[in-house]
Amino acid sequence: MPTLSQDGPQDRRVWTLHLGDDENRFSPAFLDEVDGFLADLAASSEPAVLVTTGGGKFFSNGLDLDWLGAHPERLGEYVARVQGVFERVLTLPVPTVAALNGHAFGAGAMLAMAHDHRVMRTERGYVCFPEVDILIPFTPGMNALVMSKLTPRAAVDAMTTGHRFGAEEALAAGIVDATAEVEDLHEAAAARVRHLAGKDRATLGTIKQRMFADVVAALRLPEA
Amino acid sequence: MPTLSQDGPQDRRVWTLHLGDDENRFSPAFLDEVDGFLADLAASSEPAVLVTTGGGKFFSNGLDLDWLGAHPERLGEYVARVQGVFERVLTLPVPTVAALNGHAFGAGAMLAMAHDHRVMRTERGYVCFPEVDILIPFTPGMNALVMSKLTPRAAVDAMTTGHRFGAEEALAAGIVDATAEVEDLHEAAAARVRHLAGKDRATLGTIKQRMFADVVAALRLPEA
Amino acid sequence: MPTLSQDGPQDRRVWTLHLGDDENRFSPAFLDEVDGFLADLAASSEPAVLVTTGGGKFFSNGLDLDWLGAHPERLGEYVARVQGVFERVLTLPVPTVAALNGHAFGAGAMLAMAHDHRVMRTERGYVCFPEVDILIPFTPGMNALVMSKLTPRAAVDAMTTGHRFGAEEALAAGIVDATAEVEDLHEAAAARVRHLAGKDRATLGTIKQRMFADVVAALRLPEA
Repeated sequence: MPTLSQDGPQDRRVWTLHLGDDENRFSPAFLDEVDGFLADLAASSEPAVLVTTGGGKFFSNGLDLDWLGAHPERLGEYVARVQGVFERVLTLPVPTVAALNGHAFGAGAMLAMAHDHRVMRTERGYVCFPEVDILIPFTPGMNALVMSKLTPRAAVDAMTTGHRFGAEEALAAGIVDATAEVEDLHEAAAARVRHLAGKDRATLGTIKQRMFADVVAALRLPEA
Repeated sequence: MPTLSQDGPQDRRVWTLHLGDDENRFSPAFLDEVDGFLADLAASSEPAVLVTTGGGKFFSNGLDLDWLGAHPERLGEYVARVQGVFERVLTLPVPTVAALNGHAFGAGAMLAMAHDHRVMRTERGYVCFPEVDILIPFTPGMNALVMSKLTPRAAVDAMTTGHRFGAEEALAAGIVDATAEVEDLHEAAAARVRHLAGKDRATLGTIKQRMFADVVAALRLPEA
Repeated sequence: MPTLSQDGPQDRRVWTLHLGDDENRFSPAFLDEVDGFLADLAASSEPAVLVTTGGGKFFSNGLDLDWLGAHPERLGEYVARVQGVFERVLTLPVPTVAALNGHAFGAGAMLAMAHDHRVMRTERGYVCFPEVDILIPFTPGMNALVMSKLTPRAAVDAMTTGHRFGAEEALAAGIVDATAEVEDLHEAAAARVRHLAGKDRATLGTIKQRMFADVVAALRLPEA
């Protein structure tokens, strides 16, 4: 299950949301934990940045399809909950960066896209939107989220092919912003935003709300 | 006039829409043929990809201005028909690639942009949006289509200057995704999508519909 | 205060809007002058392009915060006036280029973004959106303007960090399109558009209106 920790000096505090050492799929309990951690961070007031990462082979494999298979009647509620987490990360009033320690698939990749920045470990792991292969089209909200962070070329490549992007390919496509060896990954991610801790939260929150107003509106649409 | 042919193994069938060996302008009869071919492809169910290309010096020179000059009262109907073809290609539920064998001008260039991918022959031929020079502004639908596939920089360069982009320039601007010598062009185009044949059509169609929902809406606007 | 001058042959006239040799902040009198010059250019009919530049260390430092501090009750009217200038430049029916001779901060950087092209002097000067640091979020119109000219990556970097982009960094991010030494700056800027003088103004104006219809709508929103 996810954990939240802090390190660094008071004026440039790095909060690390660690998604876990497993597949880190979005079970309802997982979403509750993440939501709570994001609320804790939002309720704090000291200079802070967020690094989201995981241990082991996965950043996150996304939706908890086993749980969904057992609770098909709760699909709409579940998707709304997942999209609520995407919205919270997308508009979090502190700088955010995803440190991709391993595979980021589907909703796991979307969670990464919701951050301001992305750094990916070299050598292992893929970013992949398998929606076209698992017969689950992007919801309008997920569609808007991914498209808002990619060039038109990268959006077609990422969203219509199911291609697995290794670190170098993901960097070339602009899906991630930098790569780092796994032992340097957390620091490489933190270093991209640490100097931005202390930005006025109300201002930064409003800037992100306006930049992504259409995405937020789409993420709030009820699932048909 | 256009022709449609198939080749390759059953599980990765390449359908080639050959626009013709002339200027391949969009006469009403030409549009009827293309529409029929796209309907045939859409009605099939085997794994398939679409390569659109032409012979000779032109991919397509776009609107049939001679016909339009003789039938000015049918402008609205004609533009709606052209935009209907753009919509069908843009949202076709199979992977698509334009193989630019020669000049792609105006609506001919837009037809190329409607595809998922574009490969352009080296040495000869230009991609050009001459709208600013022939005093025909992009319709809102054409505007939305071209902008949906280009970076902001490339959109201003392509849409406000009438510049003729040779293959290297078009590649640098991201107007095309790759270049190939003319004898390798069809295979270079097919190779970009052949492995994607067999994607579930309903899923891929829905993904494209959602990615380009605003473009589709604009393409359906009646011409003022 | 700003001045307007012309040079070059009749068929490729370069109009230069010189913003001044000071900080070139947008006082009401400054906005009146610029508005009048843009109206003069719009009312002319000869082939023309616009180069906007300044002297000294600044292109423009943007909003006149001293004046605003003295007239807080006129904020809404003032912002509407600034955004009106952005709209006029954004949709001016002649090719436009900003030649960044020095610092372009805040609304000064936005003015540059409203042009079709941007060239920046090497060695000195920064492009910067300090909104996040001065606690003034982008208005919806300013947000739409800046986002319409940048890739998603560059938009997050420019709009959420307050980063000062030197010429090389601004070029790498696509915030500017070229750099030039200061003594070559005006000519480098003019050379990017001079050959485009003579484009039909009604057509070019309509093309820009349609490309940036959403930005224009947002720039016309009343400030809350």
